Amino acid sequence: MFFDFPDDFKAVEPFPGWLVHVAAGQHLSFSRITLKPNIELPMHAHPNEQMGIVLEGAIELTIGDETRLVKKGGIYLIPSNVTHGGSTHKEGALVLDAFSPPRDYK
Amino acid sequence: MFFDFPDDFKAVEPFPGWLVHVAAGQHLSFSRITLKPNIELPMHAHPNEQMGIVLEGAIELTIGDETRLVKKGGIYLIPSNVTHGGSTHKEGALVLDAFSPPRDYK
Repeated sequence: MFFDFPDDFKAVEPFPGWLVHVAAGQHLSFSRITLKPNIELPMHAHPNEQMGIVLEGAIELTIGDETRLVKKGGIYLIPSNVTHGGSTHKEGALVLDAFSPPRDYK
Repeated sequence: MFFDFPDDFKAVEPFPGWLVHVAAGQHLSFSRITLKPNIELPMHAHPNEQMGIVLEGAIELTIGDETRLVKKGGIYLIPSNVTHGGSTHKEGALVLDAFSPPRDYK
């Protein structure tokens, strides 16, 4: 099946400046995340395994005790229950995160 | 953890013109797929659920009995064991596919 943006996505904003559009299957979900410039992503953890790619811009991402500036095309893995967070710089970012099991935003 | 391209990826070419770079966790894997222009992706199916996004170019994708031209930014879901395949046109494509459980290419 094919998802038309934004109609076929569920939109949530779990933190200010962090707009998430969610599309989900049974075992996987995608979060297409628009990150405003100069925002903080608070450190957090969840049991869902997460893999992501930066589609536009860049994010400074901390996974466990490692921090990197991840630019367009950069791919990362956040294992289950590993604390992570980060920030954007002046250009903001567009990121695609995949979760298994699908992530249910509160 | 962070994946440097291409060193941290396993490279496979399951069909001619279809170059796959794989990065995997425990529950998820990413296939970063470079598709040459004017190739056919044979119809196939696998138990792994699949979600993907077109990063560059476009693919004509058939999922079950539905066919669409998916352009940059387009997102799709291929449920477990649903037959799918497609083709590229003259511009080729770069695609990111996520699988759960991780896909093991033969």
